[in-house]
Formats: sequence, C-alpha cells, structure tokens
Amino acid sequence: MRPELGGRGWKLAVTTGQTDVRPMKSRVCKDRGKGKTSPEVGRSLTEKNINQNIVLMQYAVRGPLVIRTGVIETELQQGAQKPFKRVIRANIGDAHAMGQTPITYIRQVIAMVAHPELIESSNLPKDAKDQARQILCGMSGHSAGAYTMSCGVELIRKNVAAYIEKRDGHKCDFNNVCLTTGATTGIKMVLELLCSSIDGKCPAVMVPIPQYPLYSATLVEYGLGQVGYFLDEDNNWGLDMQELERAHAEASKTQAVRAIVVINPGNPTGQVLTRKNIEDVIKFAYKHKMMLLADEVYQHNIYAEGCQFFSFKKVITEMGAPYCKEQELVSFMSISKGYMGECGLRGGWMEIINLDPAVQAHLYKALSAILCPTSLGQAAVDCVAKPPAEGSPSYEQWLAEKTCVLDSLAQRSKIIYETFKNMKGFKCNVVQGAMYAFPRIELSPKAIEAAKKANRPPDVFYAYKLLEETGICVVPGTGFGQKPNTHHFRTTILPQTELLAEMMDIFQKFHKKFTDEFA
Amino acid sequence: MRPELGGRGWKLAVTTGQTDVRPMKSRVCKDRGKGKTSPEVGRSLTEKNINQNIVLMQYAVRGPLVIRTGVIETELQQGAQKPFKRVIRANIGDAHAMGQTPITYIRQVIAMVAHPELIESSNLPKDAKDQARQILCGMSGHSAGAYTMSCGVELIRKNVAAYIEKRDGHKCDFNNVCLTTGATTGIKMVLELLCSSIDGKCPAVMVPIPQYPLYSATLVEYGLGQVGYFLDEDNNWGLDMQELERAHAEASKTQAVRAIVVINPGNPTGQVLTRKNIEDVIKFAYKHKMMLLADEVYQHNIYAEGCQFFSFKKVITEMGAPYCKEQELVSFMSISKGYMGECGLRGGWMEIINLDPAVQAHLYKALSAILCPTSLGQAAVDCVAKPPAEGSPSYEQWLAEKTCVLDSLAQRSKIIYETFKNMKGFKCNVVQGAMYAFPRIELSPKAIEAAKKANRPPDVFYAYKLLEETGICVVPGTGFGQKPNTHHFRTTILPQTELLAEMMDIFQKFHKKFTDEFA
Repeated sequence: MRPELGGRGWKLAVTTGQTDVRPMKSRVCKDRGKGKTSPEVGRSLTEKNINQNIVLMQYAVRGPLVIRTGVIETELQQGAQKPFKRVIRANIGDAHAMGQTPITYIRQVIAMVAHPELIESSNLPKDAKDQARQILCGMSGHSAGAYTMSCGVELIRKNVAAYIEKRDGHKCDFNNVCLTTGATTGIKMVLELLCSSIDGKCPAVMVPIPQYPLYSATLVEYGLGQVGYFLDEDNNWGLDMQELERAHAEASKTQAVRAIVVINPGNPTGQVLTRKNIEDVIKFAYKHKMMLLADEVYQHNIYAEGCQFFSFKKVITEMGAPYCKEQELVSFMSISKGYMGECGLRGGWMEIINLDPAVQAHLYKALSAILCPTSLGQAAVDCVAKPPAEGSPSYEQWLAEKTCVLDSLAQRSKIIYETFKNMKGFKCNVVQGAMYAFPRIELSPKAIEAAKKANRPPDVFYAYKLLEETGICVVPGTGFGQKPNTHHFRTTILPQTELLAEMMDIFQKFHKKFTDEFA
Repeated sequence: MRPELGGRGWKLAVTTGQTDVRPMKSRVCKDRGKGKTSPEVGRSLTEKNINQNIVLMQYAVRGPLVIRTGVIETELQQGAQKPFKRVIRANIGDAHAMGQTPITYIRQVIAMVAHPELIESSNLPKDAKDQARQILCGMSGHSAGAYTMSCGVELIRKNVAAYIEKRDGHKCDFNNVCLTTGATTGIKMVLELLCSSIDGKCPAVMVPIPQYPLYSATLVEYGLGQVGYFLDEDNNWGLDMQELERAHAEASKTQAVRAIVVINPGNPTGQVLTRKNIEDVIKFAYKHKMMLLADEVYQHNIYAEGCQFFSFKKVITEMGAPYCKEQELVSFMSISKGYMGECGLRGGWMEIINLDPAVQAHLYKALSAILCPTSLGQAAVDCVAKPPAEGSPSYEQWLAEKTCVLDSLAQRSKIIYETFKNMKGFKCNVVQGAMYAFPRIELSPKAIEAAKKANRPPDVFYAYKLLEETGICVVPGTGFGQKPNTHHFRTTILPQTELLAEMMDIFQKFHKKFTDEFA
C-alpha cells in the first residue's frame, strides 16, 4: 500500500518509516497531477520540488469528490440536465449549510460585540447586552478589533473553566484553557510538538481507524507516523484493548509511539465511549507513556438512550493517582458542532492537563506567533461556555432552540440508522452520538471489478456513482480508513428531516439499481 | 551565534545548515527553561524530547518582555507602587488596543451578517444592509455559521479581485485570490510549501534584516534556513541590490535559496519602496529562480510626501515578459493594518501569480484541511475590498473616518520621527509608511558592560530598563535582526496623539537618565 516516492523531501524520510494502515495513499498517488499541467517554464516551484508531505496529504472531507460536487452544482445552475434537480451535501458536519438555524442568543451577543452601539440603541435582551458588555470589557481597547492574548480573552477562558467545572464536577484552572480558531488549530499545534525522534526512532501517533481525516492529513503534513488501531465495528465501534496493544506493539518495533488520539463521540463512527472504555484507554496511555489527545468536540451530541458523555478529564481526575497527576491529556472542544453548529465563526478551545510547564510554555509561545484566535469566535465560545442563566430574559428561547436542534438530530440519527440497517447489503451501527453514520456496504465481485476498471477503490467508485446519479455527496470510507476488503461511507445526519427522508428514499432506489446493475 | 544542540530533532539537521544572521538565537538559548521546572515524573513530553524547532522559535512581538509588561500591568492594578501609573504598549501594531475606533461601516455590516434579523429591524444604513445581504447570499445556508469554501466566499474573492484591479489598473483573476485568517495563515502555508531540499541542499528563504519576526519564527519552526539581507539604514532602509547578491551568493554555497520575502511598506523599518527598487528585486528573483513573497499588508499606510505604494503585481505586470508570465509571486494583505486596524477579526487574503497550477492546487488542498477562514473576518474583508461607493448613504462618514485615521497616523509618524531624530544618541529614519519607527541608539561601553552583567543583549537591556522605569513597552532590535554591534528598538506610532506626546516626553527623560547613569 505504501507508495514508492524516492524520498525527495527530507521530511519524507520520516514518513516512509510507517507500518500502519494508510488506505488513502494508493489513491493519492494515482490521482497525483491528473489533469494538471506543470510546464516548468521558468518556474522555481514544481510539484516535484515542493514539500512532498503537502503533495501527499489528503483531506477527504473536502477532496476531489467534493470538488466534483461543486462543479455539478454549478452545472445545474447553468441549466444542465441531470437525473436530479439538486445536490445534497452529506459530506461535511456543516449544520447551518444544511438549514439549521443559529441560536439567537449567540448571534445577538456577537452582533453587539461587533457593533457596540447596538447595546444602547437596540431592543435586544438585557442578558445578551450584559454578556456583550462583559466580553468587550475583557478585550483590549474594548474592541473586537484588538488582538487578544494568544490563548484568548482571560474572561472567556475563565468562563470556559467554569463550564468545564460544572460539566465534570472538578476544578479547572483557566491557565490551562487555551482558546483556538476551531479545534483544528489546537490539534495541529499539539501534534507539531511531537515532531521529534526518540532514540533514533521516528515519532508516531495512534489514531482510530476509521478516523477524522484532519489527523491523517496532519500526520502526513508533519511527517509523523500514523499508527492505526481498528475500532470494533461488531461492537458498535468500541475500543478494544487487545487491538490497541497489538497496534502499539507492532508499531513500536520501528517507531516511537508518542501519543494516542481518541475521538469521543466518534467521527465518523458515531459511538459514545463507556466510562470503562475511557478508563482502559487512560491506563493504556499511562502504561506506554503516551500523551492522550481527546477529541471531544461532539460532547453535546449524545442521542442514544443509556449513553452518556464522560470527559477524559473527569475520568482521569476520578481515577486518582498516578493518572490524575501524571497522565498528559489535551482535550479539544469546538463551537462548530454541538447544538450551535457555528462552523464559520471558527471558535474552540483546548484544556491542557499535566503537561510539563516548560512544554506548555513552548506550546503557548508557538501559538503566539499566529497572534490570536478570532475575537468574534471567542465571543461565541463565551456564549457556549456561559449561556443564559435560568430565569434570565433569554433563557426560555435559548433552551427551546437548543432542545429543538438536539431532539431533531436525535430523530434524524434514528431515521438514518433504521433506513440503512434495513437496506440489503448494508450494515449500520446505532448512531449513539456525533453527527454521522458510517455504514458498511457489501459490494459484489462485479462492482469491485467495475471499480478496478475505473481505477478507483470500490467505495470511491460507489460514492461517485451515487453523486453522479442522485446528487447525494457522501465521503467514501477510504478517506477515514477501514479494514481491508471492507467498504463504507460516511454520511452526516444533518439534512433537515424532510430532506433527509427524501435523501433516504433516493438512496434506497439508487442502491437497488446499483445492486441490480452489478449483480 | 549558532547554538550547539546536538541535533536531537530530525528537522534540526536542516536548521543547523545556516550561515545567516540570527540574532535572536543566542538569547533563546540563554532563556531556555529559565525559571521553569521540568520534573520528568511520568511525563512523556519534556523540553528535551519535543520538536526542537518549536523550542527554538521566538516571536519577539509577544516575547518575554511583553509577558513582563502584562505582569506589571496586573501589579499596577493590584496597587503596586511604580515610578509610573500606566503601561504604554508600543510593542505591537494593534491600533484598536491603543484607542483607535473602528470604521463604523465595517462593524454595521458585520453585525448584520452575524444577526440577520437586524437587516429588517434596525435603522442601519441601506448600503450596509445591502452589503450584508449580498454577503449572506454568498454563504452556504445564508449563514455565517456555515463553513465557507477553503479559499473564502466566492463573492468576496471577486470583490477582492475588483479591488486589486482598481488599485493596479490590471486584470485580477479571482481564482488566484485566496482569503485567509489574517495574512499570517497564508504566509505560513506558502513557506511550508518550500520545505524540500534541492540537490541535497537545504531550502532557505531570503528575508530582510530587520524583518517582521513572523518570518524568522516560521523559518525556524519549519526548519527552513534564513538568509538575511541587510536593509540599508543610511539610505532610509532601502534594498541594496549588491547586498541582495552578496547574501544570495554566500548562502547558495550551502543552501538552496528558494524564495525572497520583501515587506513593503516596511515592518519594522517604515520605508516605502520606489518603483525602481521593486523592479530590481523582481529581476533579482527571476535571475536566481526564486519565488517572491510580497508582504504588502501596509499598502494603505503611506505618509511621507513623494512616497507612493506600488504593488509587486502592478510592477511585474508592467515589466512585461518574461517577468509577468513566469515570475512566481504571492502578495499578502490583511485587514489588521491600514485605516481599519481590525486585528482581532482575523481577515486577510493572498493573491497568487504565476504559480504552477499543480502547486497552487496543492496549496489550496493544504488550506482545505484547516477548513476555512472565519466567516466574519471575510465579511470585514469584503468591506475593505468594496467600501461604500461615492454617493451612497454611508460614503461620507466612511471617508471621514478613514481620512481621520490616516491623517492622524501621518501626524504621529512625524512626531515620533522628529522627537527621536533630535534625541542625543539617536538616529531615526523618516517613517514613510507602515506603523513603526526603528530608531538606532548609541549605547555607551558602560551600558554595554552593564547589559553583559545582566546577561542580556544591550538593546534588550535598554528595553527592559525602559519598561521597568517608565512602563513603556517597545521591542528590542534583536527581535527583528540588526547589523552586529548596532542597537535598535521598534516602537509603533499607534498611541493616540496625546498619549504619544506624553510617551515621547517620558522617553526623552528616561534616555537622558539612562545616558547619565551609564556615561
């Protein structure tokens, strides 16, 4: 599966030391440069002499299939005749793009922080005005136009710390809370810290398979090895400790495995980890002296009965010594998901636990070179950390809007699960949380043969056909990773209920036709 | 000057290939870990085994002296007795933090994009409402909460292209305009492309000395060599072609010099390049087959009579072939500077010219993994690219506010120049543009001796004394680079006129006292 590249970039020497599952790579190499012209007329930068990690990296959520979706959309607008009238983008966790309306309170506060005159001149609610005033007081020059501290406005960091304390029932030091431009910036910066070989072994990071492609993309970008551990599809995508040990032992022969990423609730898999599972992972990380990266951006998105979100911070604290005092943990949160779905505002935070103070200082210093997260994204973070209190003027509306979104997501998670579960050739786990289903599809030998002819992995072939014939855009399983010879795709649960019903209907018809065609 | 580090990180092998001026490094190593505890109790990450490029990197604009400033501010708030009552932050180009008020129109539009109800319910001006409506129409789901395309909202990219066409009098293809989270994201991503050795030589980038520390920090972070070319202080910080050739020839012996950075108007040096100077740099880059990075974020900030801003794009276009067709150029712009000073909103763009299409596609792909620039920052970009038209309801106020800021900045640039020029032991060039002065100070042998005892470079010693005795925070020249045995500091021209007069007064008294003390 590993492409032979000749090691042109010096970082590549590191990348090639991998023994892990990288299902995207073969595709990358096939697609490389396809349809592009690279005349070297006086040009100093060519595809061959730039950073080969950038050439290699892929981000499936916005990959070639999604780009094709944009083209189809434009063609439709220009009057092209297709077997469908509109595209349904089920490829990305982008709630507002799929018709979810913003939480009014958040937007009121942001509008006033952006244009403070509104605090006096408008009829916006008093609690929103108060919150906007407080946020402005925390900003230099009382303006959202000033840079904030690199870790964010202190007042907002304190409100986030209070949110975490309330969530977990344990202390949170605001000095360990760092606001970020979405969760992405924090994740990338923490991974960049790990770029150092140990005893001559190349550094590597454990990630779930399937995983969110930000991780695979960033590991390739930074020349870090990716050590995949398979989630247990037959056990609702749970973490199997034997599999973790296997992956670690195998990789450790040639690599220095420095950290483990856990995504809970899962993306693209939608599982919610049990407390026991989290404890086991913490013990595992401690035993092997690995840092723990807990991607907890879907902490508000819990749908299935009996499921509950436990933060790694809470569990580690309650496990006591040595874990609570020594195990390094960074937890990531975002305003892009949850009930707010504010992707475009780019707000998030990370909580840093048990990091060596000198290392933490270097992390903060590195963040300072990108100056600060966006001030208005921070204002939105403040509203998520400190929503209207019970009894305040905006509380009822805020609660109603929040509940409406979460109830509807829960309902849609069931619709998707029920539909896929009952489709012939489909296997789909319960969507316990997050915003996605990751069903498995049986593809016939004839379909696999056709995919081969089309020079595409079978799941990519399936997803392209789905797109071209129905306008539905999902992301093939290869973008996230999957066990060899299995085929999946990720769909979001985000189309609004009516559209989702339509999408499920179209999907069923397509799949039947596909099955018949390749029977 | 180069520290010996034993090459622990694999990237470091690259970093150590440098022959350039890196005045910050010696300080870095001295300060490393000072006052920090790194008990290795069960911790997997220590200062010694993390990415050594991150350990090495420094960003002086938010460095230790600035952190100390924050501590002093807190001490003052807590009632500590100091020889001064307030801190004056002249360390960072952060206009709003220093009392500049936002451009009303920008904030009105952002407020309505954030909270569209205001379009109907408020008395905000019609043109601002129209612009907010248009921006929302360009966003998925008509919401700022949706992710935008990775290169930004198409409508806004088109407005930026129109702005560039108007500025330069030449065509601009919006497909080559990419919106970013401030200029920083774009600069970092383009530099990351260059991380590939050529014929076994490590890649390196030419940067002016003095330079803006984002460049030095990023080059260290990415393990790229820094090739400093000295700006000509005696010629108002102009670019001397002989010096460029010298720096290139020397570095080329051991490194692959892949790009040159030019900052115009200059940061920290405040010069505005002549058209002839720009032409020469373009020829130089072409001759040596280097990419050109034009940092043009201060394009609105031109103060001195006879000075005019010429964009590299305009000059390259008018130079004709082969330059206009072959010379690779990326120009960076930001909403953080100019007359708007919207640092906190994090908006900017880059225009990409003559890049190999395959390379550009990889650049855009890499940007897609960080999803998109902030939507509200993009809305602000739209207002900068497409301000109210003459005759529209907001035009007069917008023009008055813009003119007021720029006139005041011009006035303040003169106050600073006149004061420093006439101070004994000071040499200061005219501040032709941007937001800074970078005066040179003569320090007596006794002062240099005292600095040595305090284990600080002389200019750092001076800046710390200034801070501790007066509360004025400037950035020492070592943070930007300077010729050996010369001493400078950078001050912004951003304190409002009254405060600036006070600051200049305090500064003069301090310098006299300092000079007397170390006579």
